Amino acid sequence: MLTNVTDIEILKNNLTFWDQISSEEQKMFIDNANIEKYEKDKIVYSTSEDCKGLTIVKTGNLRAYMLSESGKEITLYRLFENDSCIMTANCLLKNITFDMIIEAEKDSEIILIPFSVYGKLSSSNIYIQDFTNQLVSSRFSDVMWVMEQVVFMSFDKRLAIFLLEQSAIEGSDIINMTHENIAKNLGSAREVVSRMLKYFQSSDIVYVSRGNIEIKNRKKLMELAS
Amino acid sequence: MLTNVTDIEILKNNLTFWDQISSEEQKMFIDNANIEKYEKDKIVYSTSEDCKGLTIVKTGNLRAYMLSESGKEITLYRLFENDSCIMTANCLLKNITFDMIIEAEKDSEIILIPFSVYGKLSSSNIYIQDFTNQLVSSRFSDVMWVMEQVVFMSFDKRLAIFLLEQSAIEGSDIINMTHENIAKNLGSAREVVSRMLKYFQSSDIVYVSRGNIEIKNRKKLMELAS
Repeated sequence: MLTNVTDIEILKNNLTFWDQISSEEQKMFIDNANIEKYEKDKIVYSTSEDCKGLTIVKTGNLRAYMLSESGKEITLYRLFENDSCIMTANCLLKNITFDMIIEAEKDSEIILIPFSVYGKLSSSNIYIQDFTNQLVSSRFSDVMWVMEQVVFMSFDKRLAIFLLEQSAIEGSDIINMTHENIAKNLGSAREVVSRMLKYFQSSDIVYVSRGNIEIKNRKKLMELAS
Repeated sequence: MLTNVTDIEILKNNLTFWDQISSEEQKMFIDNANIEKYEKDKIVYSTSEDCKGLTIVKTGNLRAYMLSESGKEITLYRLFENDSCIMTANCLLKNITFDMIIEAEKDSEIILIPFSVYGKLSSSNIYIQDFTNQLVSSRFSDVMWVMEQVVFMSFDKRLAIFLLEQSAIEGSDIINMTHENIAKNLGSAREVVSRMLKYFQSSDIVYVSRGNIEIKNRKKLMELAS
């Protein structure tokens, strides 16, 4: 149950159908929603598990990725404060047949509306169903963007975009990530990332040290990314 | 308007919510649906155009693909007889922000329910909205499958799967496609396809001639694909 006024506000603002549901339905959402805390790197959800429910990010940020049998990863999308995600209630979406994992990229708090409640209200209310539909379409679009990058974009461009994104997330010119980790995010191999970073360094765009990448020439990096 | 009994049957069988809508709504679907014919290679729809409506494939088959600025393609999914597609009514899906093109891969006939009718009925009927939702999830899953292939799978495996699929579609061991065209389907380059086909040929898996690829050892090809 949500008791904190701020949490209830976040809930209301995220559930865009709030004014179109009855006060009983509103009460059900507030009474059954919970705050969950996840430390950095903890798994929030795997679609192969039981259905969790609708997730709203209160603080921190989450990363959704696909994992291959051999342990290769690719990042599908990220969720920041006030983002909602329906993939944590994937059993609601009858034809979703793929698996993905959602993990906390920083210490994060989420508001969770359990599937037992969200699923029930969604099946009887067209506004909630429309909201579900919009969330699925959003994630679909996110994934198509990644696909476009992977299929059509050169790797230097993808890496430049990734470094700029990561620097924005960390709010710093210094990115604390191993090459291995960057490779996982981009569905690539460590060697490929290291080679490209070396090339970026030789052009004075970044400075690579142990476990760190520092952006030295943001302008050039943005040119590469655009 | 659909007048042919077979066409009305196809409509009823595809719209899984048929028994849950009123007879007035059923009549609206039948009265407003139309048959459209497309010759092989004709564009059926581009999401950057105006909203068309719900598509049901009556005969033939359609291919949905993404196109890069430089003209590179990747196949996202295919639609066969009795498949429905909601991406031809993408304006209904508020958060779909990507573009794709759907073309006829063979001479094809579709049943089209215009957006003016489908959108209207969908916005007031929860069963139709649920159907929409399921169709979006299906396409999302299709695309995730392609993504998994592109990111995680070796190219020999992807090409083997493609040749087997194409042979099933054409109902023949001989695949009438240029290397250029195969590359487009797989978001790859012609040189890469030619090199891999040459390798397949050296292992007596296929025989490559001008504009043709003949499957010589289906068992080996299936081993590569699995």
